[in-house]
Amino acid sequence: MQELWLVGIGTGNPSHVTLEGVQALREADLILIPRKGTGKEDLAHLRHQILRDCGAAGKVVEFDMPQRDAALPYGQRVERWHDQIATIWAQTVKDAGRSGPVALLVWGDPGLYDSTLRIAGRLDPKPRLRVVPGITALQALTAAHAIPFNTVNGAVTVTTGRQLRDHGWPKGAETIVVMLDGECSFQMLDPEGLTIWWGAFLCMSDQILEAGALHEAGPRIIARRAEARERHGWIMDTYLLRRSVGQAGAY
Amino acid sequence: MQELWLVGIGTGNPSHVTLEGVQALREADLILIPRKGTGKEDLAHLRHQILRDCGAAGKVVEFDMPQRDAALPYGQRVERWHDQIATIWAQTVKDAGRSGPVALLVWGDPGLYDSTLRIAGRLDPKPRLRVVPGITALQALTAAHAIPFNTVNGAVTVTTGRQLRDHGWPKGAETIVVMLDGECSFQMLDPEGLTIWWGAFLCMSDQILEAGALHEAGPRIIARRAEARERHGWIMDTYLLRRSVGQAGAY
Ligand SMILES: C[S@@+](CC[C@H](N)C(=O)[O-])C[C@H]1O[C@@H](n2cnc3c(N)ncnc32)[C@H](O)[C@@H]1O
Ligand SMILES: C[S@@+](CC[C@H](N)C(=O)[O-])C[C@H]1O[C@@H](n2cnc3c(N)ncnc32)[C@H](O)[C@@H]1O
Repeated sequence: MQELWLVGIGTGNPSHVTLEGVQALREADLILIPRKGTGKEDLAHLRHQILRDCGAAGKVVEFDMPQRDAALPYGQRVERWHDQIATIWAQTVKDAGRSGPVALLVWGDPGLYDSTLRIAGRLDPKPRLRVVPGITALQALTAAHAIPFNTVNGAVTVTTGRQLRDHGWPKGAETIVVMLDGECSFQMLDPEGLTIWWGAFLCMSDQILEAGALHEAGPRIIARRAEARERHGWIMDTYLLRRSVGQAGAY
Repeated sequence: MQELWLVGIGTGNPSHVTLEGVQALREADLILIPRKGTGKEDLAHLRHQILRDCGAAGKVVEFDMPQRDAALPYGQRVERWHDQIATIWAQTVKDAGRSGPVALLVWGDPGLYDSTLRIAGRLDPKPRLRVVPGITALQALTAAHAIPFNTVNGAVTVTTGRQLRDHGWPKGAETIVVMLDGECSFQMLDPEGLTIWWGAFLCMSDQILEAGALHEAGPRIIARRAEARERHGWIMDTYLLRRSVGQAGAY
């Protein structure tokens, strides 16, 4: 594998692929698609649809993702799993007998809460890496609600549900965006003065939006999330929280 | 103006427009382009190139941006200026005599450090707003360096040069990304343990990248930035700073 292209595909809307992404998928010699199982077949389906729409002409190969070893402690388990995925990529490319650029379709943007770059770093010998940026869940959320990410000149902390549970509201932060939160961790916060903008299945046909003062919108979000998760078997959601500072509600 | 579409166009590479962006620009009835002056004609040029490439068929109208009133204090000056821009948009649309969707091309993503949404909020009567997300300078930076935005499960603070100067390193932060910094404000930080990834004119033909330990890369960046700014007459740059935590350099 001499060249590896990580192509950001956006978070569910096939028309969020950029023209550079379309071109890269068209020019790739080999395209690797993970088989995920776990009821997420619709996501694999989206990848195939994007390839069709782009007119991808390279060889498309699916590979099975390895299982995480539940016996290992968290850190080691992830390290081990990334090693195994890198080995599978290398083997799959070898078996495919192609020598041109290899492409991987990455959900959202390859830089944001995604391990593809870290796995690629384990390949030996190292291929030349190209990252094609993609629309993230952050932009999908703010676009769906037609709200700004930041206040005028204000900072924004992008964080995870686990960080929020472990460390609470980041000191001094005005706006936070929370990803990877399976537990509606906003419940732990004092809702006073906080406004939430929440979205699930953003950019997808089942997109759900909720927004409002956290004390009243929070319980509504918990209920809608549980119901939607039940119905789909899985869920992806993201939310932005803003503390009103200075003039109430100004941003 | 019944519908206003804010279309994110990425940060300088015309192929960073998404398929949704292309479609929106094709379908817009009227497209407004600000005349900026101040030596940034290449940016207006890029907007026209994007419209040509997309096959935009609507009417394209340029409008002059009002001057900011230097006599007013900062807050009022910006408020006043946004009011004036909203008035100019409304008048320009009226004069153009079109009633279909109006599109504005927004640099990067419309949600990130951009006032277009705030200006749109001043229109009366309110048009229906549609935001088409775009690739931001954040993704442009991490893609160009092929680095992750965050560490595993780590938080990232997106902030401005002014915030960094006024408040220093955000408490508890591990990774920060700085935008809108005309003064290389990283100079004020204790460089110990900090790594910087910097980019100017990202996604453009003159893209410049620098990275390394802050104590050695910092002076290099200051020199290259001054030189490039001199040559172009203006500059846009963004950087990511990461504090090494746990194992040195791990992310
Ligand atoms: C492993 S991260 C991948 C993020 C991706 N690389 C990006 O750029 O958005 C997965 C998290 O992203 C968010 N996410 C991704 N797609 C989403 C969608 N369509 N709707 C809502 N949240 C989404 C959720 O917070 C989810 O837990
Ligand atoms: C007014 S903000 C607009 C940001 C834009 N909406 C986005 O999504 O990236 C302008 C700041 O964005 C960053 N920026 C925008 N385009 C850039 C580029 N091509 N290269 C480097 N930095 C850029 C710089 O920090 C600049 O000061």
